[in-house]
Amino acid sequence: MTSSVTEICRRAAACAPGLARLDGGTKDAALHAMADALLDTAGDLAIANKEDVAAASSQGTSRTLLDRLTLTSSRLEGMASGLRAVAAQGDPVGEVVNGWRRPNGLTIEEVRAPLGVVGVIFEARPNVTSDVAGLALKSGNASVLRGSSIAMNSNRAIVGVLRGALESSGVPIDAVQLIDDPSRSAALELMTAKGHVDLLVPRGGAALIKSIEDNATVPYIIDGDGNCHIYVDESADEAMAAAIVLNAKTQRPSVCNALETLVVHESKAAAWLPGVLDELASAGVEIRGDTRVTETWPRAKSATQEDWATEYLDLVLAVTVVSSFDAAVAHINAYGTANAEGIVTGDLSAARRFATEIDAGSIFVNASTRFSDGAEFGYGAEIGISTQKLHARGPMGLRALTSTKFVVWGEGHIRN
Amino acid sequence: MTSSVTEICRRAAACAPGLARLDGGTKDAALHAMADALLDTAGDLAIANKEDVAAASSQGTSRTLLDRLTLTSSRLEGMASGLRAVAAQGDPVGEVVNGWRRPNGLTIEEVRAPLGVVGVIFEARPNVTSDVAGLALKSGNASVLRGSSIAMNSNRAIVGVLRGALESSGVPIDAVQLIDDPSRSAALELMTAKGHVDLLVPRGGAALIKSIEDNATVPYIIDGDGNCHIYVDESADEAMAAAIVLNAKTQRPSVCNALETLVVHESKAAAWLPGVLDELASAGVEIRGDTRVTETWPRAKSATQEDWATEYLDLVLAVTVVSSFDAAVAHINAYGTANAEGIVTGDLSAARRFATEIDAGSIFVNASTRFSDGAEFGYGAEIGISTQKLHARGPMGLRALTSTKFVVWGEGHIRN
Repeated sequence: MTSSVTEICRRAAACAPGLARLDGGTKDAALHAMADALLDTAGDLAIANKEDVAAASSQGTSRTLLDRLTLTSSRLEGMASGLRAVAAQGDPVGEVVNGWRRPNGLTIEEVRAPLGVVGVIFEARPNVTSDVAGLALKSGNASVLRGSSIAMNSNRAIVGVLRGALESSGVPIDAVQLIDDPSRSAALELMTAKGHVDLLVPRGGAALIKSIEDNATVPYIIDGDGNCHIYVDESADEAMAAAIVLNAKTQRPSVCNALETLVVHESKAAAWLPGVLDELASAGVEIRGDTRVTETWPRAKSATQEDWATEYLDLVLAVTVVSSFDAAVAHINAYGTANAEGIVTGDLSAARRFATEIDAGSIFVNASTRFSDGAEFGYGAEIGISTQKLHARGPMGLRALTSTKFVVWGEGHIRN
Repeated sequence: MTSSVTEICRRAAACAPGLARLDGGTKDAALHAMADALLDTAGDLAIANKEDVAAASSQGTSRTLLDRLTLTSSRLEGMASGLRAVAAQGDPVGEVVNGWRRPNGLTIEEVRAPLGVVGVIFEARPNVTSDVAGLALKSGNASVLRGSSIAMNSNRAIVGVLRGALESSGVPIDAVQLIDDPSRSAALELMTAKGHVDLLVPRGGAALIKSIEDNATVPYIIDGDGNCHIYVDESADEAMAAAIVLNAKTQRPSVCNALETLVVHESKAAAWLPGVLDELASAGVEIRGDTRVTETWPRAKSATQEDWATEYLDLVLAVTVVSSFDAAVAHINAYGTANAEGIVTGDLSAARRFATEIDAGSIFVNASTRFSDGAEFGYGAEIGISTQKLHARGPMGLRALTSTKFVVWGEGHIRN
């Protein structure tokens, strides 16, 4: 049974004030019930997911997308443990973020409050359903989920299980709703449900983001591309740099925090770079380099201007050799997408300057960019990774799903 | 000499990285130099403002607008002391907002950073120029100011003085720029300067906000209407309630934190309300009430549905009598604009429930809504009052002009 998107959003908005008042104990019990229910119904969920994967496979879906779509048992366990990790965190609602007393005796408190209704449009990954539902519930919000048609069976099954768990926990089932209409017009209806949706997060590619930017009338946060860089500085530990580059490029190349361009200080070009490129090539990575790379390592293809701006999401790596720290920063700020950027260095001043001068949501010093992730940050799950500057930047957890209000306490104060 | 808006924004963006790296001492010295310069040139500024006021007067401009436009010497002193108060605050740039250590040893810091370029479109009030310029500079941002044609002489004079002070302080003068083209197309150019403007704040009426919502491609925060309410609860101290209501309505009716609708518990209708309405009427306030008001105080006009939704910004007050606390909350959440809402009560539980259940940027318990103001919050000045939920809510000070980035420190961490 398909409800209209606006009707779904209205139901979400109607239950939002009640969710905002739920105590933390009730929310945490519901989160554990949701985790239990996912594991208890693992067989059914696998069947639903296999249907999606088989249909997608037969349509010639890319390896990247099939990887995202597949709900392995370890991913399902990850979803359940993510919900439990969300439950283990403190309740963000009611947190006093800031507070002070004015010279006239007024006491001002800045208090965290839920947003209301959080909508998420996402593509293949079915695990997004429980991540979003769990974080939204814990932060006192209702969630409206709109997955892609490719994962519709999986999403329906997961959301059904989650709603059953809500019901048994005494939480309104409309706290988590799925838009199971895969049409473009349904997505547009969600983007323009002004007054019913307090935050919309698009988790998808450039086409989805452009559609949001062109059409959305509800507030949104862009979960954008990850054209991620690692800069290997003059003073980098060479073994550490090699391990981080290998990890960032090959451990899961299809995700937005994977490495896309390696930036190497010229002092590392001759002695260090060829060995790393050999290792990357052995791992199946295609190398596209500038002339200083191809001179050192002739198997590299020549990189074009386009390569510097490309998020491959695949086993391809662009490589550039730079003459200075400043040139590395300039390259990264010019081509980066403000998602995750890394430096490998032994020089404290270089690390501090990189952290200050690089304009990005997350900056990694001597660590793989693959840690730009809500779960790795300790959020249990993530609502997405913000590549914008307002409201939230970088991996978004519970706090990104809240607003604050000022509560000002007086004793009859009037203004002169 | 008029530069194109895009060119102004480009110059602002070009100087933003340098502003982001300015140390706090340099910024504070510049703020004091700006304050000194305003007072030193008070005579010239008054002459420029008088031209604007005279021209506006001869065009039959409303009393409300003329009040906003007029730069009295006490307002000029307020501008200067606002800049000094901004200087007296801690530097928000580099503030570590949050930080933790992961079980794998990664250390995560969330660090405050400037946005880059902040644009503000404002209407008659010339004091907005120094408020915005000062807050933007202290938070490491460049500001692009676009006042209305009615205040163009005043704004040109003030911005000229501020830029002179920047120059003498060794700060790039493009840190503060005025768009002195009053055309609609110039405003549109600013709204669509995507990539050059990191935050746009419209400070104006409904038409400006609609134009931003329809046209802006740059990120913005709505500084919206203030249809403010005060609820006088059953347990309110009557003298306190009367003083607060009088203050909130009459102390400066033309501003967004002025009271527009008084909501009175029925237990206060007979004994308390008529006396307060007498006082308000003596102060020149026109009363528009529902039937329970007109029964008690027959001089009241009958309020229409429209009155509940109107921000008068004038000596007019809508008044409704409600039968319960819940009815008061429902009225305020239905008609309020999420700006500033107040309660007068002696009942702790009512105060706590009001603070939780009212959906607004600022909630005042036993204090006038007129305190919803950056200067009154201790910010020195304000960039505006956010009526949206994302990024900032309520009076916006230095922190509203910043973003954060995550800096993650490892020792060669890779992801398994």
